[in-house]
Amino acid sequence: MDKPSGLITVDGFRQLLQDQHPFATRIGAEILDIGHGTASLRLPPDDAHTRLGGIISGPMLMALADLTLYAAVVGATGNAEAVTSSLSINFIRGAPPGGVVAQARILKTGRICSGEVHLYPDGNGQPVAHAISTWALPRS
Amino acid sequence: MDKPSGLITVDGFRQLLQDQHPFATRIGAEILDIGHGTASLRLPPDDAHTRLGGIISGPMLMALADLTLYAAVVGATGNAEAVTSSLSINFIRGAPPGGVVAQARILKTGRICSGEVHLYPDGNGQPVAHAISTWALPRS
Amino acid sequence: MDKPSGLITVDGFRQLLQDQHPFATRIGAEILDIGHGTASLRLPPDDAHTRLGGIISGPMLMALADLTLYAAVVGATGNAEAVTSSLSINFIRGAPPGGVVAQARILKTGRICSGEVHLYPDGNGQPVAHAISTWALPRS
Amino acid sequence: MDKPSGLITVDGFRQLLQDQHPFATRIGAEILDIGHGTASLRLPPDDAHTRLGGIISGPMLMALADLTLYAAVVGATGNAEAVTSSLSINFIRGAPPGGVVAQARILKTGRICSGEVHLYPDGNGQPVAHAISTWALPRS
Repeated sequence: MDKPSGLITVDGFRQLLQDQHPFATRIGAEILDIGHGTASLRLPPDDAHTRLGGIISGPMLMALADLTLYAAVVGATGNAEAVTSSLSINFIRGAPPGGVVAQARILKTGRICSGEVHLYPDGNGQPVAHAISTWALPRS
Repeated sequence: MDKPSGLITVDGFRQLLQDQHPFATRIGAEILDIGHGTASLRLPPDDAHTRLGGIISGPMLMALADLTLYAAVVGATGNAEAVTSSLSINFIRGAPPGGVVAQARILKTGRICSGEVHLYPDGNGQPVAHAISTWALPRS
Repeated sequence: MDKPSGLITVDGFRQLLQDQHPFATRIGAEILDIGHGTASLRLPPDDAHTRLGGIISGPMLMALADLTLYAAVVGATGNAEAVTSSLSINFIRGAPPGGVVAQARILKTGRICSGEVHLYPDGNGQPVAHAISTWALPRS
Repeated sequence: MDKPSGLITVDGFRQLLQDQHPFATRIGAEILDIGHGTASLRLPPDDAHTRLGGIISGPMLMALADLTLYAAVVGATGNAEAVTSSLSINFIRGAPPGGVVAQARILKTGRICSGEVHLYPDGNGQPVAHAISTWALPRS
């Protein structure tokens, strides 16, 4: 059985980022998949993402987490005006240099949406970070 | 009475970012002040920081928050190898385009450090975001 | 200059807890002060609040933090139907047996309210915990 | 294949709570299962757990979440002296009166342990709350 498709396509979301979210081009994440309340994005390897110790920096991981949650929220609601209300992240292990894949899922949609995202080194392995987040949808 | 000076100077911290933290140059924050467990950084105005609605994006605010906490942790401990263990942020209001100033303070140092940071639009006003965070110091 | 008074009195809030919040009587916090977006509550000393090591348990501190934020939200909005949407807490130091005082302030009111609370051992000293939280107001 | 057994049994954990954690008897949670880094506890139905609106109060849910994470940490490490360092919880939906089951898993053990816990109404259904947490192990 197919999982329900998202309310935005991968191409549509890429266009949305290009047209409306200038900051996103700096992060340079690849959009792998968007479903109805799920999304997967990938931060490609780049030495410019690292910090002391050669691991991927916290801000790059947080940016990836936030953007992946945004894709999942838009996939579930179709509402591009959603904004992060709160985000809590645990950094579990140092993220080795290389790509990072984030997998988000939304646990509740509504005026306030709630979701989570796990971040893995590319090619899998143990999670390097885990975040929960709430999102607010503007009054329509 | 002077407040106790930090264990790293503003110049020393700028050098540390340049030499050891490649990701930090992308963020481009100015270092305003570092004390013993306090720090203040400023994200200059840049259209590339914004998101839909013209407000400063969450990832840029989280990056500024994390970097300001890092400055305060190094100011309190002198330990540049500190890493973020957890960070929780509330986005309180849309951050208008323009500069953003972050003010961090450390509430506890030790194996695990604990701190908070408030973010304000440049020229002050009401806070746009507020974060708490724990940091781990490597075994020495 | 007097600070603006809260939209509920200390007596009114005590009555609200007694009438509508059965769980609150188990916690047994004293209501010290409620202003317009501020509140202070006190958890009296009780051996039944402790955990291994003789310190006050995390759940009792979280309960005190949540209840103090609730008082501050009701003080700012008059809306008793507010519910916690998210809460993030850092446990900073072991809380010695004895009373604990919590001081909350609301940074934003609206559909989503945002606030913070610091917890101190009775008679002051360094903070033992610090939390940030968002609250949702029901549609009116 | 059997999953690896925890470093404490359900009976051993119950005894630990009785002997060393006075606060836990107030919460009255049942211990359903403890594995190596996993645990499941249940909060039995009790009108004294509710708040305005007839839903289970946030503090009771946070207490259950924290205690279930503790069981999972002790199951993974055998170290009863572990203490919560940070906890972030999203309240996703109102928790209907009745029992609540919490399922925790530890994503990393070490000096700092990291885990998450989902809370469900008894008899399952959609999650009512979701938390992530870090725990500190004392120096041995």
